[in-house]
Amino acid sequence: MIDDAVTREVPALLTDAGELALRWFRADPATLGELDKGGPGGYDPVTEADRAVEHLLRTGLARLFPEDRIVGEEAGATGPGTSGRTWMIDPIDGTKAFVSGMPLWGTLLGLFEGDEPVAGWLHQPYLRETFGAVNGEGWLDGPRGRARLRTRPTTSLADAVMYSTHPSMFAAGEEAAAFARISGRVRLQRFGGDCYSYGMLALGQVDLVVESALQPYDIAALIPIVRAAGGVVTDRRGATPSGGGFVIAAATPELHARALESINASG
Amino acid sequence: MIDDAVTREVPALLTDAGELALRWFRADPATLGELDKGGPGGYDPVTEADRAVEHLLRTGLARLFPEDRIVGEEAGATGPGTSGRTWMIDPIDGTKAFVSGMPLWGTLLGLFEGDEPVAGWLHQPYLRETFGAVNGEGWLDGPRGRARLRTRPTTSLADAVMYSTHPSMFAAGEEAAAFARISGRVRLQRFGGDCYSYGMLALGQVDLVVESALQPYDIAALIPIVRAAGGVVTDRRGATPSGGGFVIAAATPELHARALESINASG
Repeated sequence: MIDDAVTREVPALLTDAGELALRWFRADPATLGELDKGGPGGYDPVTEADRAVEHLLRTGLARLFPEDRIVGEEAGATGPGTSGRTWMIDPIDGTKAFVSGMPLWGTLLGLFEGDEPVAGWLHQPYLRETFGAVNGEGWLDGPRGRARLRTRPTTSLADAVMYSTHPSMFAAGEEAAAFARISGRVRLQRFGGDCYSYGMLALGQVDLVVESALQPYDIAALIPIVRAAGGVVTDRRGATPSGGGFVIAAATPELHARALESINASG
Repeated sequence: MIDDAVTREVPALLTDAGELALRWFRADPATLGELDKGGPGGYDPVTEADRAVEHLLRTGLARLFPEDRIVGEEAGATGPGTSGRTWMIDPIDGTKAFVSGMPLWGTLLGLFEGDEPVAGWLHQPYLRETFGAVNGEGWLDGPRGRARLRTRPTTSLADAVMYSTHPSMFAAGEEAAAFARISGRVRLQRFGGDCYSYGMLALGQVDLVVESALQPYDIAALIPIVRAAGGVVTDRRGATPSGGGFVIAAATPELHARALESINASG
């Protein structure tokens, strides 16, 4: 079980992180300090905002939980980890959306006990929304107050609304074919959204999120959020996707089974 | 010149329309009354929210401007048009985003004098944002106050961030090839956004929006917004895209010329 200090302290830390991120959001691009990390997917921006938000979260977590290990997108792993707990930080998930002024990026914070993802938060400061999950309970705090996270009861691909961030995340060949296969079977296939798509899944607004080439910090925070809402999230073999890679998140176990079957069907 | 009544009355009407739309946003799907309009692009939802918002705007505009013509997505054309003015309503542009809980849809209102698009508004009530343009002046009213709309000075495709709603909007064959050609030349190509992408162009956050299969009411409101911000928006032949279809919106005349050249290059 997660202790009260986590539930009490993390939201305030995320609020501070969000206020910091917003200083760069829609600011003059010259102040962003944008660098291209490059890599196989092409242009991959990282900004001063990513670095500053990660630093704020690392410093805050290290002060609050000095025995924990802290892993972040930008600055690697720190902390002793003698508690057996690990925090995973993605300071700005959806940096491409962030640098485009689109408000569907998020600050992600995931908590593991050993190998088990046990708590997660997705904070979107421009929307004043925080999706959270602790001890199997999930909620959205936002401008309309607090709502319980609950996926909707969709069980068939033909009824499903599916999101993915961008087609280029799927490797050419077998992986792109698998994505095309499931895209052809759902009611509606849409792109865009980054981490926010998993929030909409947990809120019962969409039914499937299928993505690839994720990093561990892209998905760590979202696993507890999807699960607390009643959804299922795995890799292509049906295992917990803590390592990132190819991820299938579904509103129900039945829909997840059908998605996995479609994705793994040969030819 | 647009008279003061327009500048004074339209924002309040849009606020009412936005509050009405939000009653259905992220509500129980059973209350949406969603219908599939179908068509060549596949699933095409229309909801009670579309119909109710259009009705509210039509009723309000007819009361305020009884001599004007009013054209809407859902209910066709009404009003005498003896003034020479026409209002174009898209009650919810981005219905697929709306039914997915994503807050990047918008209520669009465009005003023509004769054939000339002279004013436009994009209202996003969940974000509490209104992009507007009247008499060549453009602004964003939002949670951070009022900002002037101004595109950024990008002139080369290699520096440009480009948005399009979805790859399926481009017809297979020559049109898809044209889209692939320009996609391969820009710095960053992203999907999603609907009308909101044009807002980000006008706010200087992205450089290009390239779309196809638009209806006249999808683009009418956005032409004055892009132009007031210093951008250029045309069809593939370089003409004002009031009829919809294939649309190219660019931050600068130079970038627009290069985009048009790339899109119209043969092979």
